[in-house]
Amino acid sequence: MGLDMTDTAKIKACVVGLGSMGLGIAGSLLRAGFDVSGCDVSADAMGRFSTLGGDTAQTPGAAANGVDVVISVVVNAMQTEAVLFGPDGAASQMASGGVILSCATMAPDAARAFEKKAQALGLMYLDAPISGGAVRAAAGEMTVMASGAPAAFDRARPVLSAIAAKVYELGDEAGTGAAFKIVNQLLAGVHIAAACEAMTFAAAMGLDLPRVYEVITASAGNSWMFENRVPHILDGDYAARSAVDIFTKDLGIVTDIGRALKFPTPVAAIAMQMFVMTAAAGMGRDDDASVARMLAGLSGLDLPGAKA
Amino acid sequence: MGLDMTDTAKIKACVVGLGSMGLGIAGSLLRAGFDVSGCDVSADAMGRFSTLGGDTAQTPGAAANGVDVVISVVVNAMQTEAVLFGPDGAASQMASGGVILSCATMAPDAARAFEKKAQALGLMYLDAPISGGAVRAAAGEMTVMASGAPAAFDRARPVLSAIAAKVYELGDEAGTGAAFKIVNQLLAGVHIAAACEAMTFAAAMGLDLPRVYEVITASAGNSWMFENRVPHILDGDYAARSAVDIFTKDLGIVTDIGRALKFPTPVAAIAMQMFVMTAAAGMGRDDDASVARMLAGLSGLDLPGAKA
Repeated sequence: MGLDMTDTAKIKACVVGLGSMGLGIAGSLLRAGFDVSGCDVSADAMGRFSTLGGDTAQTPGAAANGVDVVISVVVNAMQTEAVLFGPDGAASQMASGGVILSCATMAPDAARAFEKKAQALGLMYLDAPISGGAVRAAAGEMTVMASGAPAAFDRARPVLSAIAAKVYELGDEAGTGAAFKIVNQLLAGVHIAAACEAMTFAAAMGLDLPRVYEVITASAGNSWMFENRVPHILDGDYAARSAVDIFTKDLGIVTDIGRALKFPTPVAAIAMQMFVMTAAAGMGRDDDASVARMLAGLSGLDLPGAKA
Repeated sequence: MGLDMTDTAKIKACVVGLGSMGLGIAGSLLRAGFDVSGCDVSADAMGRFSTLGGDTAQTPGAAANGVDVVISVVVNAMQTEAVLFGPDGAASQMASGGVILSCATMAPDAARAFEKKAQALGLMYLDAPISGGAVRAAAGEMTVMASGAPAAFDRARPVLSAIAAKVYELGDEAGTGAAFKIVNQLLAGVHIAAACEAMTFAAAMGLDLPRVYEVITASAGNSWMFENRVPHILDGDYAARSAVDIFTKDLGIVTDIGRALKFPTPVAAIAMQMFVMTAAAGMGRDDDASVARMLAGLSGLDLPGAKA
């Protein structure tokens, strides 16, 4: 290896997509001493990154000029394609032998296609979806579900160490990381929809909702998402920590894969419809716990914040 | 109070229904020094109870003759009605002012009707559904979600202390305990169906299933049920700890209540259909993780124990 991997200052990193997750990643890299450039379509996001000490550029390609590691933290496969391989994309500008970390949740086939494109340019690719939310991203404590060539892991390890508390190395080809993440998203999406259905059902039966939260979180009906999202319902606070539209997308990927594999996913399919209904009611960009607000709104339940 | 509640030997208790939960309860009471009688339709169950030192009787009425506390641990409202208030039922034989603990999961309306019948006989009634599974029942460490008159709680407290690690006192009328339990069952049932769907979906994508379990249990897709039931799938072990038919029943109660209240429960409804499909395929009395076996069977997936 020509690069001394113990000296983070010698690794040039670029973060494309400076939303809540990307900004947290970029901040973690800056704190760890990396030389970090970044790019986002939002001037506000670029401003926040500048404040942290990052170097901004107007296009992914300009931001990635000569860098060793590009971290793509955009929303989906289409945006990933654009920022990496489109006009003014990052990939063609990177240092030779550099590695792309692709963090968006996408179908395994899309991840495999991107790995091939990266290899054709002499680059390495890690299929590296992330989990944990904005708070853990800002703390450098995300979970990464990654797959790719061992050499890509070796090259990216100092970066991964700076941004994640836990890195699962799940296989030596792109696609496996994406598949693990989409299994997680199936469960996460269903559990959010179920939490919202259960809490509004409890309200319809006239139960004391904070007490329901207390009892369920200590019982066999608990889930990570129930524990995390129900406080939003109790507070009537639907400011987006993670938006409804994330799950219309991710559960859409689940059901698309299922259809392609001829494998039925009825629970994921109905949960997806709950998010689609919530988006249809105008709450697509609100917090994903808004499924509860949708159910309360259509049935005339008096829930905190339901009329907002 | 005419009874010294600190002396458990003076309280005569009767357990009706000596299945895995009832036997655990009866054993906990015997260890705590109560005088315990019991009754079950199964001679095997009665034999196990005798071995622990309990007094058996051929009918609920005979078992409950002169007792202070009757604990009904049968499957549903219909069985509860029969063992408490039917011919040879327990209620009419109890000591005056005694208290009934009714543990079956049922609709809140059914619990309220039983409370009225008990009161008409000069008895007290606790709507006291239980949670935690057979292992915790045997250890005297169940969770009880109870509602009823304060005097009923006072009278039953030594018994509750002997059988439960946690007693939620949720209100002063029957129905509230049942409603909390059914909210828990909505979530538990959906989470089991989702766990089975997610694991078989992962298998369909060719993933390493033990690794999926490791990653998901450390991620936001986790649930109490995922963590508890997926080992059954990994081991291909579908010996019933809790049977598929429990959830066709409990999710049926959820959807019946929703229909009566005109409140939609689409996620619970599709989960119920998954359990109905599994029961239709001949696995109603097998472990509830058999939803995974049903999905594997219909799609030709090679899952441990799937052909059994």
